[in-house]
Amino acid sequence: MNIATSISQIQKFLAAARNKGKSIGFVPTMGALHHGHSTLLRRSRKDNDVSVLSIFVNPTQFGLNEDFTKYPRDKKKDVLLAKKENVDIIFYPSEKLMYPAGYLTFIEAGNLGQVLEGRSRPGHFRGVATVVAKLLNIVAPERMYLGAKDAQQCVVLKHLVTDLNFPTKIIIGPTVRESDGLAMSSRNQYLSPSERKDATVLYSSLLLAQNEIKRGLRDAAKTRFLIEQNIRTLSKGVIDYVACVDAETLNALTELKGNVLIALAARWGKTRLIDNISLSVK
Amino acid sequence: MNIATSISQIQKFLAAARNKGKSIGFVPTMGALHHGHSTLLRRSRKDNDVSVLSIFVNPTQFGLNEDFTKYPRDKKKDVLLAKKENVDIIFYPSEKLMYPAGYLTFIEAGNLGQVLEGRSRPGHFRGVATVVAKLLNIVAPERMYLGAKDAQQCVVLKHLVTDLNFPTKIIIGPTVRESDGLAMSSRNQYLSPSERKDATVLYSSLLLAQNEIKRGLRDAAKTRFLIEQNIRTLSKGVIDYVACVDAETLNALTELKGNVLIALAARWGKTRLIDNISLSVK
Repeated sequence: MNIATSISQIQKFLAAARNKGKSIGFVPTMGALHHGHSTLLRRSRKDNDVSVLSIFVNPTQFGLNEDFTKYPRDKKKDVLLAKKENVDIIFYPSEKLMYPAGYLTFIEAGNLGQVLEGRSRPGHFRGVATVVAKLLNIVAPERMYLGAKDAQQCVVLKHLVTDLNFPTKIIIGPTVRESDGLAMSSRNQYLSPSERKDATVLYSSLLLAQNEIKRGLRDAAKTRFLIEQNIRTLSKGVIDYVACVDAETLNALTELKGNVLIALAARWGKTRLIDNISLSVK
Repeated sequence: MNIATSISQIQKFLAAARNKGKSIGFVPTMGALHHGHSTLLRRSRKDNDVSVLSIFVNPTQFGLNEDFTKYPRDKKKDVLLAKKENVDIIFYPSEKLMYPAGYLTFIEAGNLGQVLEGRSRPGHFRGVATVVAKLLNIVAPERMYLGAKDAQQCVVLKHLVTDLNFPTKIIIGPTVRESDGLAMSSRNQYLSPSERKDATVLYSSLLLAQNEIKRGLRDAAKTRFLIEQNIRTLSKGVIDYVACVDAETLNALTELKGNVLIALAARWGKTRLIDNISLSVK
């Protein structure tokens, strides 16, 4: 397995592969890899001749008071996981390589970047869209793999690719969960044992709502209230938001109908977790 | 010569060329082609195996009170000029193809997009950067050719390509002028005969300043004043701005030193013209 730390290194490797007619799959990550990432890497391995993993903790998608400096970094462990998943090359750029002095071009995702996570994390999707555009231009993959846990990120990046005519197909992998239902996330390692136990309430609340929707619930406000009450009753989590939105436009719904995304964020201490479910409601 | 009106058409044509190892040169335009464009097309012809011309009057780079609807469109004449310059394929997309319903991703060029033209035309460079990113993803050329008359556009797009890692080289062609010095522009055809005569003052004022700088003038404020006085004295043009800036950062200069861009804009009635000179000042 190769590790490229410069753009010329990775492009040389990929040009050689492309010249042999090989297809390229790409999994962009911030490292601290877990089974969710493995699932994406396996899918890329299956669909493509060459799999590229990028590891870059992207400063432009973190707010000033967020966890950029303490975001988990473990190159050794990540490299081992990548080897195990038969990654062909890791792109491991420095901050200076990605954002040299004088850098100033940024991509905005309009309203899609301002709701939900974007409201709590101003500028977050601007950073995400910008770094992914850069990575797409560097790697030029046939397919890019994203995890469904970051539902809004998937929507924003699908729009980026369609709107800006990137010749890359986006494939969404499922949210991978721990055995007790907690969505896998690099941020889970911030949780204390009691917080870790508490945090299972996020998914169980989403499942509770899903069950009620199956039984006929269609009122978005009542659905949100049900989830919020459940989180408040059963945990010490501080709710940031619970939202029922159209899965494509992210517009808030009053009635649950069509492709519905129920997304939420809550905090335990300084640790902020997100989760979501997607439902097709008749 | 081919004319592609869909993305699949042009991409099919270019994929076939690329498979034969041919290099691709690209000249993006809004049509109403003149000798300035011809110069770029000839350079592309010389440097590349295949030359692509795009013609698209891009709505997102026009302000609400600007000349989008009346911007000159003459497909027949443009096609003739393209044939004469041995263009291989024209990309001629519709507005709906470039900005379908639900379009929302835009590229911002930070401070570079807000000074000079950007101050008079808010959102202009956002539209320019966005449409060019789209075109670069569609055409994926080795080289893109831009005219020096749009100096700020050149700076913004060079930054776009560098910052977002587009694998395209930008080549700047010279400002082509009428025999009396007026910079060629599709907008010149808006001018009445007397305005047309008047408008030569723009370049003659720039040359006047250049001459004074050769003779030792280094004060930016005095240089601007010299140009402004000359335009006001010799014409009915209404000055929008005269600026002496660093040619790379577009930061305003107090002392003329290094790579200096002297740029200006003025109006005759509703017709707004721009011009500039670049100087290396010791």
